[in-house]
Amino acid sequence: MYEEREVLVGGQPLRLAIPWTEVLLQPSAGPDGPVENPPVRLYDTSGPGGDPETGLPRLREPWLTARGDCEELEPMGRGAATGADRGGERAGFPPFRGPARVIRRAKAGRRPTQLAYARAGVVTAEMAFAALREGVDPEVVRAEVAAGRAIVPANVNHPEAEPMVIGRRFLTKVNANLGTSSVRSSVAEELEKLAWATRFGADTVMDLSTGPAIGTTREWLIRNSPVPVGTVPIYEALERVGGRPEALSWEVFRDTVVEQAEQGVDYMTIHAGVRLAFVPLTVGRVTGIVSRGGSIMAAWCLAHHEENFLYTNFEELCEILARYDVAFSLGDGLRPGSVADANDEAQLAELRTLGELTEVAWAHDVQVMIEGPGHVPLDKVAENVALQQEWCHGAPFYTLGPLTTDVAPGYDHITSAIGAAVIAMAGTALLCYVTPKEHLGLPDREDVRAGMVAYKIAAHAADVAKGHPGARAWDDALSKARFEFRWEDQFDLALDPERARAFHDQTLPAPAAKTAHFCSMCGPKFCSMRISADLRRAASAGAGAGPETVDPAVAAGLAAKAAEFRARGGELYVSPAELASSPAQLAVSGGAGSPTTPG
Amino acid sequence: MYEEREVLVGGQPLRLAIPWTEVLLQPSAGPDGPVENPPVRLYDTSGPGGDPETGLPRLREPWLTARGDCEELEPMGRGAATGADRGGERAGFPPFRGPARVIRRAKAGRRPTQLAYARAGVVTAEMAFAALREGVDPEVVRAEVAAGRAIVPANVNHPEAEPMVIGRRFLTKVNANLGTSSVRSSVAEELEKLAWATRFGADTVMDLSTGPAIGTTREWLIRNSPVPVGTVPIYEALERVGGRPEALSWEVFRDTVVEQAEQGVDYMTIHAGVRLAFVPLTVGRVTGIVSRGGSIMAAWCLAHHEENFLYTNFEELCEILARYDVAFSLGDGLRPGSVADANDEAQLAELRTLGELTEVAWAHDVQVMIEGPGHVPLDKVAENVALQQEWCHGAPFYTLGPLTTDVAPGYDHITSAIGAAVIAMAGTALLCYVTPKEHLGLPDREDVRAGMVAYKIAAHAADVAKGHPGARAWDDALSKARFEFRWEDQFDLALDPERARAFHDQTLPAPAAKTAHFCSMCGPKFCSMRISADLRRAASAGAGAGPETVDPAVAAGLAAKAAEFRARGGELYVSPAELASSPAQLAVSGGAGSPTTPG
Repeated sequence: MYEEREVLVGGQPLRLAIPWTEVLLQPSAGPDGPVENPPVRLYDTSGPGGDPETGLPRLREPWLTARGDCEELEPMGRGAATGADRGGERAGFPPFRGPARVIRRAKAGRRPTQLAYARAGVVTAEMAFAALREGVDPEVVRAEVAAGRAIVPANVNHPEAEPMVIGRRFLTKVNANLGTSSVRSSVAEELEKLAWATRFGADTVMDLSTGPAIGTTREWLIRNSPVPVGTVPIYEALERVGGRPEALSWEVFRDTVVEQAEQGVDYMTIHAGVRLAFVPLTVGRVTGIVSRGGSIMAAWCLAHHEENFLYTNFEELCEILARYDVAFSLGDGLRPGSVADANDEAQLAELRTLGELTEVAWAHDVQVMIEGPGHVPLDKVAENVALQQEWCHGAPFYTLGPLTTDVAPGYDHITSAIGAAVIAMAGTALLCYVTPKEHLGLPDREDVRAGMVAYKIAAHAADVAKGHPGARAWDDALSKARFEFRWEDQFDLALDPERARAFHDQTLPAPAAKTAHFCSMCGPKFCSMRISADLRRAASAGAGAGPETVDPAVAAGLAAKAAEFRARGGELYVSPAELASSPAQLAVSGGAGSPTTPG
Repeated sequence: MYEEREVLVGGQPLRLAIPWTEVLLQPSAGPDGPVENPPVRLYDTSGPGGDPETGLPRLREPWLTARGDCEELEPMGRGAATGADRGGERAGFPPFRGPARVIRRAKAGRRPTQLAYARAGVVTAEMAFAALREGVDPEVVRAEVAAGRAIVPANVNHPEAEPMVIGRRFLTKVNANLGTSSVRSSVAEELEKLAWATRFGADTVMDLSTGPAIGTTREWLIRNSPVPVGTVPIYEALERVGGRPEALSWEVFRDTVVEQAEQGVDYMTIHAGVRLAFVPLTVGRVTGIVSRGGSIMAAWCLAHHEENFLYTNFEELCEILARYDVAFSLGDGLRPGSVADANDEAQLAELRTLGELTEVAWAHDVQVMIEGPGHVPLDKVAENVALQQEWCHGAPFYTLGPLTTDVAPGYDHITSAIGAAVIAMAGTALLCYVTPKEHLGLPDREDVRAGMVAYKIAAHAADVAKGHPGARAWDDALSKARFEFRWEDQFDLALDPERARAFHDQTLPAPAAKTAHFCSMCGPKFCSMRISADLRRAASAGAGAGPETVDPAVAAGLAAKAAEFRARGGELYVSPAELASSPAQLAVSGGAGSPTTPG
């Protein structure tokens, strides 16, 4: 559902439609009749949906137009930005032929970035939108963005995205990697994975395509993505030079970045920290360089024996990104690929460089986040955040996992969800998910689901641990429903309602079981939750919540209840059928404040 | 495989067959030809296998006989211990009719417990066996058991079990819960789950049956279990009184415990800490009492308004358990059932009581471990271990999860593996697994697998983080295989080889892909691992591992290699087919110490 909200932006009232998943709950059974449970609103990233052929509605179009800081170019002849690809059409990769659009680019002398506005004290519509869905004041988002501690990735050419904020003061976010490879791919498959990723809560997605028709795939994804889209432009640049890293050049890379920026990519992974001098530091590693971008740049440096061209041309790159408000995701090309290599010299040397580059980007009003590992044993996780926050001046941290052990290929969504929860608790703002196929194959739709759910768990567990305002309300609502045997509410509140329902029905498929006061774990006689509920009623009939030793009043109440229970002959375990047919008994165990009501 | 080892036990040589999973590895490709990789030995709990109708061989029989501290009773007419059940035979529950056995019980004045022997300075065969499979000195096991910091659960009536040790100085262990319920069950299904649990590394199992034919089910499980078996005797006691907690009595419970002890249960969950005075402390909770045993005892206390009979008869219980060397698993009947209730007054009041009871049990030479939560937000996990270790005098901690959020029914193996890894890193010795069916239904074979793998990951991640000697060797061997594209070695070393292989084959089914120097993630051209391997060869041709800035020698080497690579026209990305057909080229990129060898 979308909730209409009116906020003041720049002194002007602005109507925003904030997306929520609203879960309506059944009432609880109280001593004096049903007690309403308020609906629970959950953060929702699935977007408005619609026909992929036309793309999503352009939510941000009026805001962008109103700001007037961009010129609007005709897309004709602008290459990949129109959805065309070098090499023409391929099977499975039809061009996107949705409604015409303009390409926006900063007017001369203007900086249309969220960072520039935030620094100027302006709350943009994007910041307001992001704030409202977080449940915080828009000014908090502005202040955090201005300080560099948060980013609102929002390319002026991706008007379809619903704005969101990445920063340690906000809800922990999750990125889902999508993308084709030369081994397997089609646009339809990628769109399906995009839909599943956002259905299960992806806050951003990255298109990591390396196969054919990279530009076409990306056009389809951006036009249909309700969340910011990131890329690693070096992949496409490498395709453009026939897959030979030594043939790469700043010019080819720059042109690729411009085209992607005009298409609407919201943030780009840039491996500018893989400096020539750091390459030898990886030689003694167990797993060398495992980042694709990192190894490409290392190969280039080595082939030319020159400094990384992304590093030497970083200021020009900043100017390009500033024009479209593309955020930097400064890549960790030297991240460890095994627990053995964690927190080593190569990794930390690069991290220091990313800290230098952060300040350069900020000087150009470009938003920045910093990528992190990878594979890290649990005892070294927190150090990663501490060093990143210190060296990178508080810029948001964006980590891949980390995997906490290397021994479980096929289950790396779990090995890494453990690390992800711990690193998020320590302050990571955005988690890049890992699917069960990591190290083994290309994820399909079900892998996307498995990876997303594992990471939403990690992110939420961290938010609960951090005491994020409102985070635990979701747990409490579900636990209350569980304790009260409101099965449908439990399913509806679950992170994956379909799975929860299916698992329950495997053992107890009958519709009546969904209102039963027990489950298949123990069966009706042994249900601890039921016994416990009965106990509570009994105890509360005597007195309120408890002292360290039994209060005389409570003791008296308990004794009275004890006599009563014995008189009833052990009717603690009333079957659901009996419960239904014997309201008088229910009223007794319901308490009603009178310990003398006979059973 | 079993490795024959001879050790001195009590000055006498003893031959022990230590179980291992031995993974043979392919050689690495070195500059001067293949370099052997030593086999990797992994801890193995799957046992010797065999026909379930006859049960496992009785490994410990000669040790027990040699100690001569037990009388040997005829099992005839001793009720459930023979595998008979009240109510006779039921479909799906045939009696176990394996070879005859005697029932052992302490001779008058003897204490046949591992704790008694350890305190007397004696290393038992059980301690030696447990030590050798851990890779530690047997004296370390003895000393830890003597101090109460570890237990070797080894009922004198479970001679089939391969001894193991539970304690924070040793490998983190995992327990798998099995058991029938009134809703669904059969012996065959439970035996299958037992086999899957130990195949995937269960160190102990608990039979939590609550359905029909509890005794028969347990007999089948114990006679076929290569790992210690735990139970919660109150479940069976409750069955014996028709499911009415208020009808329970110390006498019924005691008789149940004796029969289970004579059957061979190695440890028993005893909810002696659910004291009458603590019950009112649960009234204000979101989820009351969620432990079945806890709620049964609370119901009993309430119905009688008397102190818990397990608490008041605890010394007699100790004497019974001492006779068979059954270990206490002091149950946390008041554990939190939601993150909202974590670390509350009720939970901590019970924990303090468990600390008192620990000292009582130790006075009777009975081994003790302490059960812990449950549902705990990540920020409160470490406190649980700190308080337990302090209040319970260092007795091993045995925790269920904990789940770090309540919002993901259907995925609680993941919500809890996160908590399990963190609590194990903090010092928990035994983790009770949680399956994906938790809160929803009864686990089947696949759920057992999913739960076990998630928990072996958590346990191993903790062991790596704790720096447990040898733990990381497994990770390093797998990572090295990964980096060198030894696919079969990666699969064989994986925690779940079948799954790893299947996932790889989904994308690249051809046999040739298992020797390919790339995977489906990136395809042949983009493989970072390959690029990285090439880089390493190039760099090592120039010099050794790396300085902070480029050493002149390295730089010279890199420059030479740079020229060479350019001369070869970008042959960094040789396809596997080319590699196979062009050994000369391989030799070049392999380095061979000569930067001048032409491509």
